[in-house]
Amino acid sequence: MLKIHHLGHSQSERVLWLCEELGLAYEMHKYTRDAVTRLSPPDLKALHPLGAAPVLETDGVLLAESAAIIEYILGRHGEGRLQYGPDHPDFAAYLYWFHFANGNLQPVIMRALTASRCGLPADHPVVAATQDRLGKVLALMEDHLAHNDYLAGGDFTAADIMTVFSLSTMRLFYPFDLAPYPSIRAYLARMGGRPAYQRAMAKGDPDLTPLLQ
Amino acid sequence: MLKIHHLGHSQSERVLWLCEELGLAYEMHKYTRDAVTRLSPPDLKALHPLGAAPVLETDGVLLAESAAIIEYILGRHGEGRLQYGPDHPDFAAYLYWFHFANGNLQPVIMRALTASRCGLPADHPVVAATQDRLGKVLALMEDHLAHNDYLAGGDFTAADIMTVFSLSTMRLFYPFDLAPYPSIRAYLARMGGRPAYQRAMAKGDPDLTPLLQ
Repeated sequence: MLKIHHLGHSQSERVLWLCEELGLAYEMHKYTRDAVTRLSPPDLKALHPLGAAPVLETDGVLLAESAAIIEYILGRHGEGRLQYGPDHPDFAAYLYWFHFANGNLQPVIMRALTASRCGLPADHPVVAATQDRLGKVLALMEDHLAHNDYLAGGDFTAADIMTVFSLSTMRLFYPFDLAPYPSIRAYLARMGGRPAYQRAMAKGDPDLTPLLQ
Repeated sequence: MLKIHHLGHSQSERVLWLCEELGLAYEMHKYTRDAVTRLSPPDLKALHPLGAAPVLETDGVLLAESAAIIEYILGRHGEGRLQYGPDHPDFAAYLYWFHFANGNLQPVIMRALTASRCGLPADHPVVAATQDRLGKVLALMEDHLAHNDYLAGGDFTAADIMTVFSLSTMRLFYPFDLAPYPSIRAYLARMGGRPAYQRAMAKGDPDLTPLLQ
């Protein structure tokens, strides 16, 4: 049994979505952010020292880090679906975009958010540098998605599952503008149309209207 | 042939180290940061739109993102070494610490660095929050390494290769203090004693005295 400790409005939507795409049974334990601070609640902090979500409980282990959880579920229950192995021609592309999500896109957004909270003018060098970097990252994605329906190769993969949160729900916390990126917006609309995504969001975040444009 | 585009004083030391641990032949192309701005040089930017290092050139592909490169090399040339598969009892621990490096530790350091550059007092809420988070992440590692020689299970793995950069070379850019963390410092000394690490640093960053304490 997969027990998913799910924090509303967080990266843990990725894990629900993965399970829905794979058709895996799971049990969801829902946690809600503090209405004022938006921080995770004490009972989630009691589960994991960083108070991070998601946490997967299965096979006698408690596992945090959404990318680790996704690789764990794919490795144990994926039967080769939603990822490419070493002999697939898109192995490199899959790994690149899978790791790009939390290794580049999400940290760049978080740095821009951090800088934006410092009460500095928009032309302060640190604020400008974080904006510039975010723009470069989004431009790279826009360019790629102008020619590809999915991030890695010709099919939907876990790289897409890793990425959509940072482009959609993350904008609740830091509202960066996707207007200049029509291919990213078209991609989000495609992803949001997937029945498995809709089931996951309906179960995990029924109060949320996903930011899919 | 593995051609590694290596930027001095960067995450690309991980890739050299991995190849040395695996005993793989590789060709290194060295790039040097601008002496004043510490940014990557134009010829690296020409190779990859984000100007990021490392970049691996092999099998007709150009692959960036150090975590992706490490998974690629392990998948294609690792023969099962330095990682645990889905049936290993430490599979979850391996995935957790592998992803913790770039999904948590490195982004938290980068946010603290960003906040520190804003010219704010140390008790500004944003500066204090980034320091608090970095302290929590280091305390989690300290606690773990007080009881474990390696991050994941009983053996050296690619999770260690992912992590050491952020605790050592990264402090050239943001000098956080490891004095309160004796187990992290002992771990760094152990890692720094590995012949493969020493060969990698001697080849890639001979001008650098690694920060191993």
